[in-house]
Amino acid sequence: VIAVDANGADQGPRAVAEGVARSGLPVLLFGPEAEIVGPAGLHAEVVDAPETVKAGEEAVAAVRSRPDASIVQAAAAVGDGRADALVSAGSTGPTLAAATLSIKRIKGVYRPALAVLMPIPGGPVLLLDAGASVEVRPEHLVQFAYMGAGFMEAVVGIERPSVGLLSVGEESGKGTPDVLTAHERISEGGLNFVGNLEGFDLPNARADVIVADGFTGNVALKVLEGTVKAITGEIRSRIRSGVVSSLGGLLIRGKLGGLRDDLDPEKVGGAILLGLRKPVVVGHGSFGPVGIEHAVKLAQRAVEEDMVGRTTAALKAAGALRSATDASVASR
Amino acid sequence: VIAVDANGADQGPRAVAEGVARSGLPVLLFGPEAEIVGPAGLHAEVVDAPETVKAGEEAVAAVRSRPDASIVQAAAAVGDGRADALVSAGSTGPTLAAATLSIKRIKGVYRPALAVLMPIPGGPVLLLDAGASVEVRPEHLVQFAYMGAGFMEAVVGIERPSVGLLSVGEESGKGTPDVLTAHERISEGGLNFVGNLEGFDLPNARADVIVADGFTGNVALKVLEGTVKAITGEIRSRIRSGVVSSLGGLLIRGKLGGLRDDLDPEKVGGAILLGLRKPVVVGHGSFGPVGIEHAVKLAQRAVEEDMVGRTTAALKAAGALRSATDASVASR
Repeated sequence: VIAVDANGADQGPRAVAEGVARSGLPVLLFGPEAEIVGPAGLHAEVVDAPETVKAGEEAVAAVRSRPDASIVQAAAAVGDGRADALVSAGSTGPTLAAATLSIKRIKGVYRPALAVLMPIPGGPVLLLDAGASVEVRPEHLVQFAYMGAGFMEAVVGIERPSVGLLSVGEESGKGTPDVLTAHERISEGGLNFVGNLEGFDLPNARADVIVADGFTGNVALKVLEGTVKAITGEIRSRIRSGVVSSLGGLLIRGKLGGLRDDLDPEKVGGAILLGLRKPVVVGHGSFGPVGIEHAVKLAQRAVEEDMVGRTTAALKAAGALRSATDASVASR
Repeated sequence: VIAVDANGADQGPRAVAEGVARSGLPVLLFGPEAEIVGPAGLHAEVVDAPETVKAGEEAVAAVRSRPDASIVQAAAAVGDGRADALVSAGSTGPTLAAATLSIKRIKGVYRPALAVLMPIPGGPVLLLDAGASVEVRPEHLVQFAYMGAGFMEAVVGIERPSVGLLSVGEESGKGTPDVLTAHERISEGGLNFVGNLEGFDLPNARADVIVADGFTGNVALKVLEGTVKAITGEIRSRIRSGVVSSLGGLLIRGKLGGLRDDLDPEKVGGAILLGLRKPVVVGHGSFGPVGIEHAVKLAQRAVEEDMVGRTTAALKAAGALRSATDASVASR
């Protein structure tokens, strides 16, 4: 069973319910019951939860003080075992706060990371952290490497996924001191590590997993998405600005349809919070029924393939989990 | 007079000499004389300097130990007053090292920044730092804001250029602690500050100047350039993959020519090292004669418009220069 928060989607709770119905999977759906009832084929138990935590609010405080909010109830359902995974159609901040509170981190994981399957030709490529933590230490980057590889292996089905570290040059000596330390530690482990990658490499599928701190990862992902949108929009408007070129536009249309799908975040399935004890998927705010359907199926696959168990085992085998000793050092 | 280092360009010293000839400006040209002599219209005094510092070398050590290298000689010519600005056709690392050594920082400037006019539709937009310093403190970001505005005002001719700070959200509370501090200090000054910008905004000309630390700025610029290349390349190869779409490609060609120019780094003029006592322009390694011509003209404009003097005055008026007190604190 997947717990789904229907609040927060740009297209409203009804579109989320339609996406759940399309998935055909059993769901516990939290949201305003009056707006949800209806879509044919909905296999969901609806829990009336009209209250929502909005993107602008201070997420941690909001989540702690409002137990009735739909995202808090949905995360609690996963925390207490009524559901096996969480899907949120709303913003990342409240989802991260509610999931950390109720679902909790894997023991020994420092911080959850937001992992995003990037909409690029030749993908899928997973980028993490895309913004859960704006400041990280080297040991966090090392954990992100294992968490990302665990997802790509278990959920996407890539054997021994290649992992790269985002930096300012390909040479191992390029980057901040934290990146250099992380580089060294990751290369000592058993991952299929390809070393540093540069910004150029992001849209070119040079590795299955790209690891970054949440500040750089967030900026990089948004530059990628913004550039795709700006360039394709500019090309489209220039083609439409003349009669001859508009005709040309019609003739190239068929060949470019597949590319449009590759570059569409909605087709790719959203973002995943890794490092928690159950799978958590966060839809893009703009997702309609198709995006929600993919998000629910992604969560289901993470449950079936035991993503969390396999990732935890890999982190443990690599000695990358925080030990009791580290914990006491960290809390000084 | 502009000092130009002819070594390091992918297309060789002769292409650099051709670019210098195209500019029509008086130049002191450092490089292998045997390969340079010739282009018609070259108003340059050629100084034979075949030795070059390559991109892969440890730049600071190489520059200190090899006074005969062309970039070291060219920077020294600017440092001792034989030339008014430096243009390098080679890599950023050796240029930065040689310029810092011989031309020196403006008194009170913490660190030079690499500023790049981004190849985007609707530009020019200046991004800095694009990689001179991978780690910075808030006071460095504040200086970058004034240095970038000074360049856009003096050299590009934009009155009261708008300045944005690259972060992970538009709200002033979003970002690392260093970014939050820089945000507060920049907003207290007299710049036309538009607040935080996100990665989405980079290709959309939302501000004239975008300020970032050198790690994030380097990654962001390369993601932008890589994405433009990947998307336009993918579109081109899909169009060429069929007869009908190839015909369509011919029909849209005229409308897209201008866009190709907008997106071509060579047309935009390279990167500028700001914060030094004389203007320093670094060409893209791939530049041919046209790119070099633009780079030399850019350096000339910076000299004529007294970019350095105006930037220094603005930094001083804002109280953003390092004082003797700060210096002693920093050196503890």
